[in-house]
Formats: sequence, C-alpha cells, structure tokens
Amino acid sequence: MIDPAALLARPPIETRHRLTAKDTILYALGIGADELPFVYEAQLLALPMMAATLTYPGFFWREPEYDADWKRILAGEHSVAIHRPLPSEGDFVGRTRILGVEDKGADKGAVVMLERRIEDEAGTLYAVDRRTAFLRGDGGCGSAGAVIPRPDPAPADRAPDELVTLATATNQALIYRLSGDLNPLHIDPAVARAAGFERPILHGLCTYGVAGRAVLRALADNDPALLMRLDVRFSAPVYPGETIETRIWREDDRKARFECRVTERDVRVLTHGYAELR
Amino acid sequence: MIDPAALLARPPIETRHRLTAKDTILYALGIGADELPFVYEAQLLALPMMAATLTYPGFFWREPEYDADWKRILAGEHSVAIHRPLPSEGDFVGRTRILGVEDKGADKGAVVMLERRIEDEAGTLYAVDRRTAFLRGDGGCGSAGAVIPRPDPAPADRAPDELVTLATATNQALIYRLSGDLNPLHIDPAVARAAGFERPILHGLCTYGVAGRAVLRALADNDPALLMRLDVRFSAPVYPGETIETRIWREDDRKARFECRVTERDVRVLTHGYAELR
Repeated sequence: MIDPAALLARPPIETRHRLTAKDTILYALGIGADELPFVYEAQLLALPMMAATLTYPGFFWREPEYDADWKRILAGEHSVAIHRPLPSEGDFVGRTRILGVEDKGADKGAVVMLERRIEDEAGTLYAVDRRTAFLRGDGGCGSAGAVIPRPDPAPADRAPDELVTLATATNQALIYRLSGDLNPLHIDPAVARAAGFERPILHGLCTYGVAGRAVLRALADNDPALLMRLDVRFSAPVYPGETIETRIWREDDRKARFECRVTERDVRVLTHGYAELR
Repeated sequence: MIDPAALLARPPIETRHRLTAKDTILYALGIGADELPFVYEAQLLALPMMAATLTYPGFFWREPEYDADWKRILAGEHSVAIHRPLPSEGDFVGRTRILGVEDKGADKGAVVMLERRIEDEAGTLYAVDRRTAFLRGDGGCGSAGAVIPRPDPAPADRAPDELVTLATATNQALIYRLSGDLNPLHIDPAVARAAGFERPILHGLCTYGVAGRAVLRALADNDPALLMRLDVRFSAPVYPGETIETRIWREDDRKARFECRVTERDVRVLTHGYAELR
C-alpha cells in the first residue's frame, strides 16, 4: 500500500523532452486536428493541450518503490494551466511531484494529486499539469498533503451556448499512441477485453485533446495562444471512430464550463470541464 | 540542361537511414493500413512498399550541379524488387545511381532511370528501387546508358480476377508526409494551385503503398514477406479522401498485372502495374 508521507517527501521526477516540429504535428494528427497551422511546419502553431503529454514521466506507479496496486489505477481529473504559448519545437524539462493524497476508505481507494511543471532549459515556465490518479486498491492509506480541489459541474439548468461535434477516426488511437503513450489497452483487443472493454479504447488524453479543439473553435477562433487553462474529469471511455459532441456554457468573456458526450451511445465521457482564455 | 554522360559517371549518392519501429508504424498509417501486425510494435511486420522511401536521398535534382530544369520534373514509373523481407527496425544504407537517360526530343523531354540499392550495415541486400523521372525541360540532351524498359499494360481483353477497394482518409497526405517527403504540394493549397491542381494531391508513393496493400490482401493473405516485386506507372494524381480501386489480373500463381482507379472520378491513377510473389 502507498505511504502518503513518503510520496510527498520524494524529490521531483525530472524528465527531459526534445520537442520537434514533427512531434508537434504528430500530436495534432493524433487528436484529429487537420487545420493547416497545426499540421504544416511552414506555419506551425503548437496546440496547448499537448502540454498534457510534454515531459510526461511515464507510468511510474509500476515501480516497486511506490508500493501501489498499480493495475487498479484509473485516471481521475486533469487540469493544464498554460503560462505562455508552447513553441512548436524546443527543449523542455518536466518536474513531477505528488502534492496530496486523499484516502476515501479501505473499500473505495485513494486519490493522489500530481503536479508537473514544464519549463524550458532556461527555467521559463510554460505550463503546469495537474492530474489526479484514483488508486482503487490503496484505500485506507490515510490522507496527507494538499486538499484536492473539487471541480464544478456544468450548469444543469440551461442549454449550452455552443455545441461542437468532432468525429474521431477508427485509427485515432493508432496515431495518438505514437506521441508516446504505448499502453496496449489502446491497440490490443486481448488486453482491452481483459480490462473489461469490448475493444481497444481511445486514450483519455486524446479525448481531452478533442475537447480542447472544440473549445478553441467555439471560443478562441482557433487561436491556440488564447487558451490558458483546460480542466476535465474522465467519466467514461470513448471508442475510436465515435463522435464527440462538446457542449459549452459560457460563464463570462474568458471562462466557460463544458462536457463531452459520445453521440452514438449518448454517454458522457468528460464532465466538469472548465476552460479559461486570455 | 542535363549532361547524360556526366550523370552516368557520378559516384553513387550514399544515404543512411536508422529505421525505428515508430517509423515503420508511421509509414503503415501513412498509407492507410490499420491491421495490427503493421501498426503494433508487439508483433510488427514491415510493409515491403516502405522500401520505396527507405534511404531515399531526397529531391537532389534541385542542386545546381545537375543543371536540370527541376521544376518541370514528373515521376514516371516505379519498381521495387524485394530481395529479403524488411525488418521493422535497423540501420540501412542506400546507394543511388543514374542508370540511363533516354532523350525524347527537344519539345518532349528526357526520361532518366535511377536505381537505389538498399543494404544493411553488413552489406546484405534488402531491396532495389528503380524509378524513372520525366524531365520535361531537358529534351534534346541526347541518350546514354541503359535502355529504359517498357512495362506491359494490364490485359484489355478480360475482366480483372480480383478487385480491392480501399478508402483514403482526408488527412492521408498529412500522415504520409511525416515519413519524410515534405513537398508542400501535398499540404499547401497555394502551392497545389500554382502547380495546376485544385487542392493538395496525395503523394504518388502513398498511392503506390495503397496499391501494395491491395495486392497483399488479394494475392498474399496479407503476408508482407511474400511480396517480391511491385511496379507501377503514375498516370494521374489522387486527392486525399478519394477511394482507390485496384483491379488485379492473375498471370500465374506468382505473377499478376494491376491498375488503380479513383472511383469518385473514374480516373486511372496507376497503370502498368506488376506484382510478383514468392
């Protein structure tokens, strides 16, 4: 079982990432973008959602020193704060720390909040990635560190102001995984079945990227430099080839709430979405 | 104007290529393949059509020492002979030579035949790529070197034995170009219009790859190790998103002729196709 105090005391995991224009284009294609500025090196703009993968340290829970029941971990919430627009190429350093552990009880599990600060080699901060991992097998470990914030749901009392429908391709996960997350759950039918799915599912962060595309289109005229923050809660998986409808409620000129659902199955796949613009 | 004797006397252009599993998967996705053995590193098989891009020296005609009217060059025919199945990763060396020049006359142009031998670092031969370039602005240069062979057309007197229909995606060229051919003709609408096309066209070698997929499906039960040779003539461009129908005429157990057409416009895009199997 995880030891919250020991997790909080660990030094940050440092990861270096040389981002090339090809990586930036491959990420955009991986989330289904085809607008010229996102896929053409002659006028390339990085999509801000890429910060969720940039300098990602990998699935370190698998290592014995964490003593986690890693097979029972689920992604919970994800938040990226963009401090300055990402360049389309460059050298980045990520530093990942564990900020807090919230024990939900022995029969439920524990929620762990992680933070990754993404800087360039000169120490300029580009983005802060915060995510929660739900460790279903580590309940009863006790709580420690920062209190994990509760995001707000989308308004239930009114219709959305914007609605963006984006298709995913049947090979979407095959392209997305080349950006680094090679978990076989997203390609291997046997692994997917063993995990309880009828076929391989899309990466949660790929769905996150699609939601980001919808927000940029609806609220920022597709200018990636305007997105400052994008938060979601993962509520259900998407199968490659399904259509993702993003429903957006404006809060004011700069803030909005959103949710995503798969139209074919009428299932909500991302909830508690929040976007903030410059 | 090109100097045929000087071209034939040039030393081979040597190019080195470190092929990774990721490259092999990206190539497969670039030609629209999604079968697990072609896209999943756990059981990866390289598609033999990839030899057409492996160790490719780039568009060297642009360099002044060739003295070619490079803006008026068109791809003519392409032939790949596979001597042994390509591994999905490894270090390769390509050696490109000019084998022959055929002068078609001052008002027509000149056809140049190039050969690239692809070996590993130990000198084992994997494939020989032969292609012709049609230099429309270099007619009158005189002929020299090897006689350029005339491929046979598909039979006109009987219906094809096999018919394979494969869709291309609207983002097909965007994916394919990440395998190395960044010619803006395949992504930039302004460049495409300047070249006389209504929008960016698919890479000829991407269409070639789609034809190879069709041949493997129809004649080799999708076993890439069985393909020994694949030849085509490029007759018209494909637009990304169009459907490519490959019509195949069996000659015997190991040989077949084929043609490809775009079903939406009923235009033949590859002719004089020839496939040979082990």
